[in-house]
Amino acid sequence: MSREQAFLDLLKPLARHPAARGLADDAAVLELDPGPLVLTHDMIVEGVHYLPDDPPGDVAWKLVAVNLSDLAAKGARPVGVLLGYALGNVDDDAAFVAGLEQALSAFDVTLLGGDTVRMPGASPRAHGLTAIGKAPPHGAPSRAGAMVGDLLYMTGRVGAAGLGLAIARGERDGPAEWLAAYRRPQPRLAEGQALASLVHAMADISDGLLIDAARMANASRLAVEIDLPVVPVPEGADRMTAVTAGDDYELLFAAPPGLNVSQPGLAMITPIGRFRDGSGLTLNGEQGVLALPDVLGYEHDAP
Amino acid sequence: MSREQAFLDLLKPLARHPAARGLADDAAVLELDPGPLVLTHDMIVEGVHYLPDDPPGDVAWKLVAVNLSDLAAKGARPVGVLLGYALGNVDDDAAFVAGLEQALSAFDVTLLGGDTVRMPGASPRAHGLTAIGKAPPHGAPSRAGAMVGDLLYMTGRVGAAGLGLAIARGERDGPAEWLAAYRRPQPRLAEGQALASLVHAMADISDGLLIDAARMANASRLAVEIDLPVVPVPEGADRMTAVTAGDDYELLFAAPPGLNVSQPGLAMITPIGRFRDGSGLTLNGEQGVLALPDVLGYEHDAP
Repeated sequence: MSREQAFLDLLKPLARHPAARGLADDAAVLELDPGPLVLTHDMIVEGVHYLPDDPPGDVAWKLVAVNLSDLAAKGARPVGVLLGYALGNVDDDAAFVAGLEQALSAFDVTLLGGDTVRMPGASPRAHGLTAIGKAPPHGAPSRAGAMVGDLLYMTGRVGAAGLGLAIARGERDGPAEWLAAYRRPQPRLAEGQALASLVHAMADISDGLLIDAARMANASRLAVEIDLPVVPVPEGADRMTAVTAGDDYELLFAAPPGLNVSQPGLAMITPIGRFRDGSGLTLNGEQGVLALPDVLGYEHDAP
Repeated sequence: MSREQAFLDLLKPLARHPAARGLADDAAVLELDPGPLVLTHDMIVEGVHYLPDDPPGDVAWKLVAVNLSDLAAKGARPVGVLLGYALGNVDDDAAFVAGLEQALSAFDVTLLGGDTVRMPGASPRAHGLTAIGKAPPHGAPSRAGAMVGDLLYMTGRVGAAGLGLAIARGERDGPAEWLAAYRRPQPRLAEGQALASLVHAMADISDGLLIDAARMANASRLAVEIDLPVVPVPEGADRMTAVTAGDDYELLFAAPPGLNVSQPGLAMITPIGRFRDGSGLTLNGEQGVLALPDVLGYEHDAP
């Protein structure tokens, strides 16, 4: 039996939905209620988006979570995913499937299909995932759309994943929850769905709070200011490091003052700044305006 | 400007559909007429699915074509694609985008979104593409479903892409159309749509006629026999090589005898065999049953 077939056999129990056609067909055939779809595709590369010795189950979880976080930012309800997987060794593949099953089950999403490939030699591997969801009833918010007078809000806190990455690299110690924040991020799906009709703009915080806030302001053709002392960060974290660290997958959104989300069980929502006429990002400290750090967040391959 | 941003700027003219949100958002938001969707995701890896010195525009074309071929096998009408691209050098990236634009334009598909990553160092690159289509009105055929008494039919001919690969590798000479068959395959979209309601089973021939026919028979729990002398192959091609070569992206389907497709302008359709009770593949020659070759086609990572 080929390695690809062995991997497919592991995946089949995850693809119970009839749309997946038992992963035996050329494509998935998906029946959905009418209404707009939300579609996203993110890749992760070994040595770039994850560490070569990150547990394969955590890599699978993260691949699902980063894509579902994009759906969360649109207020979408996830439906299914297609996986593009580069085979590793047999044990790693089984551990990857176990983590994939945990993530799909945790977020109530089905595996619809995908592809399995081999990278030549000892190449770093690259995996991709496409997530499909249903848009919220009153339309999917975009990154643009913030209005003058809107406050900038965020869910949860930022910085734990960055601290977790430092732990994973052996650079420091810290509580297990930091490492979990890095390896098993929780996309804010319930929050995104509850917020979609209340916000003027929404995005997830994947590259860092400051850079993602600056992008929202830029897309909205406005200026944004952030009050650094009120940004929720883990206890003991350096605040400036936390707001420039990536991988937290919280939601960032623009909405009028006095936002009232009545649904119980959601993550904490904190107003951390405001939009005004103009352009650019201003960072306020206790004593006035702060100098911006040289790097606002993860800028992919910026020179 | 970052390399990723420069690439995005090249892609933006290909993403004119409002669903793509100018590639500036976390996800695409796609409005479609009601009805089932067909979804597929294929990856291609440098040195595995394409040669490192294949022109980048041809790599882009092939990435689109192999995915659209999966939609063709379901009789689907393509709607859009999401691209996962690993950056190369600046010239290669521009050539890739040019080929992508040619393919999307040729097949009338829009770019909805995706992701751009960097592979570390001089790693072989991996790209993925997800294609979304609308299922045909009377349902999407599957690989299973062939019935006793059905004939096995194929569109076009097989073997040209394999000959083209040999040319690309510098192993032989041959007409430009063979190289084009390897580098710029033409998914049989019109044929798939015309055939969908007439067939009992359909698949594309991506890994080789013999292996793909054997898979259809196996999925249908039937035996299949193929008459080798009637299989259309390029003039001068070795027939056994042609029926075990991959990458031709013709359609293979099971339908009753006397199939009549009236739509003009479609590729040639040839009955090449039949389904019967039992299991396995039989290959008939001029003088009787032939020994099967050791390798029926491309089996991915078979040991």
